[in-house]
Amino acid sequence: MSEVVVVKFGGTSVKSIGRIQHVCEILSRLSKTNKVMAVISAMGDTTDYLLKLAKQCSAQPDKRELDSLLSTGEQISIALVAMTLRESGVKAKSLTGSQVGIFTETFHTRARIIDIKTESIDKAFAENDVLIVAGFQGVTDAGEITTLGRGGSDTTAVALAAAVKATECDIYTDVDGIYTADPNKIHNARLLKRISYGEVLEMARLGAQVLHPRSVELARQYGIKLRVRNTFKPEHAGTVIDGGGDMELFRTISGVAVDEDQASVAIMDVPDQPGIAGKVTQALADQNIPIDMIMQSFHPTIGHNSIAFTVSDSDLDQTIVILNALKEQLSAKEVLADPDSAKVSLIGAGLTGQPWIAARLFSTLGQNGINIKMITSSEMKITCVVARSQAHKASELIHAAFELHNEPGKTAGAQN
Amino acid sequence: MSEVVVVKFGGTSVKSIGRIQHVCEILSRLSKTNKVMAVISAMGDTTDYLLKLAKQCSAQPDKRELDSLLSTGEQISIALVAMTLRESGVKAKSLTGSQVGIFTETFHTRARIIDIKTESIDKAFAENDVLIVAGFQGVTDAGEITTLGRGGSDTTAVALAAAVKATECDIYTDVDGIYTADPNKIHNARLLKRISYGEVLEMARLGAQVLHPRSVELARQYGIKLRVRNTFKPEHAGTVIDGGGDMELFRTISGVAVDEDQASVAIMDVPDQPGIAGKVTQALADQNIPIDMIMQSFHPTIGHNSIAFTVSDSDLDQTIVILNALKEQLSAKEVLADPDSAKVSLIGAGLTGQPWIAARLFSTLGQNGINIKMITSSEMKITCVVARSQAHKASELIHAAFELHNEPGKTAGAQN
Repeated sequence: MSEVVVVKFGGTSVKSIGRIQHVCEILSRLSKTNKVMAVISAMGDTTDYLLKLAKQCSAQPDKRELDSLLSTGEQISIALVAMTLRESGVKAKSLTGSQVGIFTETFHTRARIIDIKTESIDKAFAENDVLIVAGFQGVTDAGEITTLGRGGSDTTAVALAAAVKATECDIYTDVDGIYTADPNKIHNARLLKRISYGEVLEMARLGAQVLHPRSVELARQYGIKLRVRNTFKPEHAGTVIDGGGDMELFRTISGVAVDEDQASVAIMDVPDQPGIAGKVTQALADQNIPIDMIMQSFHPTIGHNSIAFTVSDSDLDQTIVILNALKEQLSAKEVLADPDSAKVSLIGAGLTGQPWIAARLFSTLGQNGINIKMITSSEMKITCVVARSQAHKASELIHAAFELHNEPGKTAGAQN
Repeated sequence: MSEVVVVKFGGTSVKSIGRIQHVCEILSRLSKTNKVMAVISAMGDTTDYLLKLAKQCSAQPDKRELDSLLSTGEQISIALVAMTLRESGVKAKSLTGSQVGIFTETFHTRARIIDIKTESIDKAFAENDVLIVAGFQGVTDAGEITTLGRGGSDTTAVALAAAVKATECDIYTDVDGIYTADPNKIHNARLLKRISYGEVLEMARLGAQVLHPRSVELARQYGIKLRVRNTFKPEHAGTVIDGGGDMELFRTISGVAVDEDQASVAIMDVPDQPGIAGKVTQALADQNIPIDMIMQSFHPTIGHNSIAFTVSDSDLDQTIVILNALKEQLSAKEVLADPDSAKVSLIGAGLTGQPWIAARLFSTLGQNGINIKMITSSEMKITCVVARSQAHKASELIHAAFELHNEPGKTAGAQN
């Protein structure tokens, strides 16, 4: 049997019956040569609508119930896609996360996939050419419905590709691929033909939001080549994401990413004792709140530390509650929060080996009156936290300063 | 442990978040003295909305996919009810048909319950006071999602009551109980305090639509006392449905029911050979189309039969397709359909033993110019098919002629 083609369509690709019919044309065409497994998100704003209903019922909806509620979004879209395909004579069947055999841990709203049992996939393919799988959801051993968190549909697609031993996975979305910057904000942002897992991972984590980081990590782990492409221009090649090969030879900087969904938090004046940072991060980890850019500063003259970090804006309220509960235990003076933050990052392979890059980045922002609140850097990115209102201006300035609109090799910034 | 209280709330009782909160107040109150099992329908018009989406995808949506689609309606409502209860501190948990252990046959869109495995119920009650169960749905041994057909939530409630050995089941709805006629149409329709399974069964089949007939059959089989009551007047006693006891002693006629969702179909001039009626009914049974009031008339002079029967209006298109396919095989002359039909029925215990009842019924209609197209009668009902436009006028005339607005024993019509 030829390889199973694994594809994923996001919520905007299925937001109306007309768009579902368009997606079904693509699937029908693919099914003429291969068995097809299509992972589908909830239609358009369904998930947000269901979340709104939940919030009307409870300020902090029970997470188990929330998962059961939200999983209906994908169950609706896969049934509609499957019946549309069957109407046109394609042998298709929908499978919920539970039915397809995606087993997860019990951590509701952010569960991780533990195992995919492929028996039901094999059985369903024996009688069908296209399997329509609900993204974003799984089931525990005890039969509880779980969800994988935002962007979980990408993870579902890559995990299924690995499970059926596919070597590629196409992510259909509403953009042409991955750009050097947000093309809605930077008019001359350039579409990348190819990018490495590592670079796109840094971009995704920082809010480029084309692909969920977990899905990219999983693709790297299993060596699955991802292709981000436009549902409405299926003839376009999009952007390929793979191991990278020789691309670093001719290109240093792949793009600028902005993450507006950020808040900075600081715990001020904690006595300088071992274990403080551990207690803070553990308390947040217990509630599964991811933190980023943690930094600790020591004031030797007064013997006090301050700990600062960033969290997702949506986690800020809960973070403040947790930290205020810890405050007394830590003998901290106060908890400060700055919700109006954004991260602006420069992404590329081997940035740290080239000091001119950081220098040009910081001086570009400084010369234009943009204050940098926090900085971190790694092999593949340099991130600055700035005021949210200045984030897009900052990304525009950086995109121009590094001439990212030009094809690699032609950039005047390539001093090395 | 005291008996589990089993209650069911229909779609109008949970059609908004405000109404869900009201339902949760009732459930919270009940949970103070008993373990509670609440079966919930989909919110308001959700099922109709999902059906409309399906119809846009496919003229005849695949039934397996339709079940998966429609079952989301209840999954949404139970999650919202459970999170509302938890918000107010009640230990509550939602369970889908699959999670609660309602196993059905594989016949999609009209599956019958085969078994209820109570292990998950016992386990869930060990940690919760209120279980919120999705009505209308079940699961096959193979893990396929099924639905029980319209009105299936009543059936879910009664089947669960039997499974947990409850002796009563309260059906909360948007009316005060069961009346002698439709109170929206007949201004002096009277609320019945008590009615037997048999009588309400005849009423429900004929479109009184307060309770689904399968749920009443199941309640009779397991001796479960049903109570139909108003969600918005929980202090009212409603109507009790049970074995009936001595009620026949003082009351003959319990009410008038109208079923507007009817179509008459006739196959004309079939040769008088054995097996024709069998072939027709088998062909319809194969598609699970229930038929009613079947009658065969023989014209000895021409050696031809005609077969007439009624079907649900929603089954008419499919019925005509099936009969036209059979026409040649049966050497029938033509297939006639009359969609604008309605059934008007008089319900009571032991009607056939009292010929004055039929006489008064037919002459009431005749004297008022209402043409009777078909008649059937049984121990508990006399049914007339009339033009749909005359159905309510007919029921009004009958209600008045038998003085059903008066308390039993006071009616001038009680000649026996």
